[in-house]
Amino acid sequence: MARWEPNARARLVVAALDLFTEQGYDSTTVSQIADRAGLTKTTFFRHFPDKREVLFAGQDIHRQILADAIAAAPGLATPLEAVTAGLDALTASFTQAQREFGPRLVAVIAANRELEERATFKRASLAAAMTNGLRKRGVPDPAASLAAELGARAFYGAFTRWVEPASQQTFAELARQELDELRTAAATLG
Amino acid sequence: MARWEPNARARLVVAALDLFTEQGYDSTTVSQIADRAGLTKTTFFRHFPDKREVLFAGQDIHRQILADAIAAAPGLATPLEAVTAGLDALTASFTQAQREFGPRLVAVIAANRELEERATFKRASLAAAMTNGLRKRGVPDPAASLAAELGARAFYGAFTRWVEPASQQTFAELARQELDELRTAAATLG
Repeated sequence: MARWEPNARARLVVAALDLFTEQGYDSTTVSQIADRAGLTKTTFFRHFPDKREVLFAGQDIHRQILADAIAAAPGLATPLEAVTAGLDALTASFTQAQREFGPRLVAVIAANRELEERATFKRASLAAAMTNGLRKRGVPDPAASLAAELGARAFYGAFTRWVEPASQQTFAELARQELDELRTAAATLG
Repeated sequence: MARWEPNARARLVVAALDLFTEQGYDSTTVSQIADRAGLTKTTFFRHFPDKREVLFAGQDIHRQILADAIAAAPGLATPLEAVTAGLDALTASFTQAQREFGPRLVAVIAANRELEERATFKRASLAAAMTNGLRKRGVPDPAASLAAELGARAFYGAFTRWVEPASQQTFAELARQELDELRTAAATLG
């Protein structure tokens, strides 16, 4: 019975983001999202556990990309070089469509405390994936979680800059710049 | 009509923590918490917006303590010295009762995803308070938010150690040690 719907997942994300932007997150139901996407509620729940998770769909994939790339970095790479490899891989996985949705995604999350909490949790989850990857490379704590934290900051800082319409640089370039700025700043803390 | 109930707030926190530990967070109602504390639901809602917030009651006070102490640190203090002043003040505000509740609080939060998300958000909120305090001292970004992040890590790392029954050191001593370890680790990231 489970008919395959082409791009159902992506269509649901777009429909949700449109509706959250137009009428607010709290006023939007799963039925409305499914309708707008031209799909059924059943299809919605095949892809997402609830309406909140629509906006955080990539979390598990993002964790995996980070962990794999950090594990695959050269053996002699420093912790931050391994994190850079992770960020290169993660940023490369982002599409132009994601860039275009970026400003609306940021605005919707900032307007709702529940979404903001969830976004903070996703951020911590990505940092945890990087921490685990670094530990497997033999980086001790707290250096592993600290390098991962810098990686998470670089990623989100770069995302904010990348989605600006006037931005000319690639997501990966921006992430490397952010990480360099953080490395420099870390030396000034006293 | 609003009768003053001695220590109502503290009694509600203890009752909630007891019930969450005994029967789980999801199975516990506000009525049960109020009953256990010998108070009414009305009194509960005078102190907390919902049952979740009982466990995060100190957030605003903690933010204020951090911000005030960071602002009051000597003008020549480095960012991490100002953070140390904040941690000294914050850790000094904790009571022996809070230390004794610590292990149960940690266990209850770890057992529930909703509480874990809320705890992550509180952590980010304390870091934001430190970041604001440092910016007011003229510390530029991203150094301000990075120093604040080290402060938040030191605080939570120290809390985990402090609430261990065998722990002999003060909360403030542990926080300073944690911050020193983080400072040292920051120099090894490459």
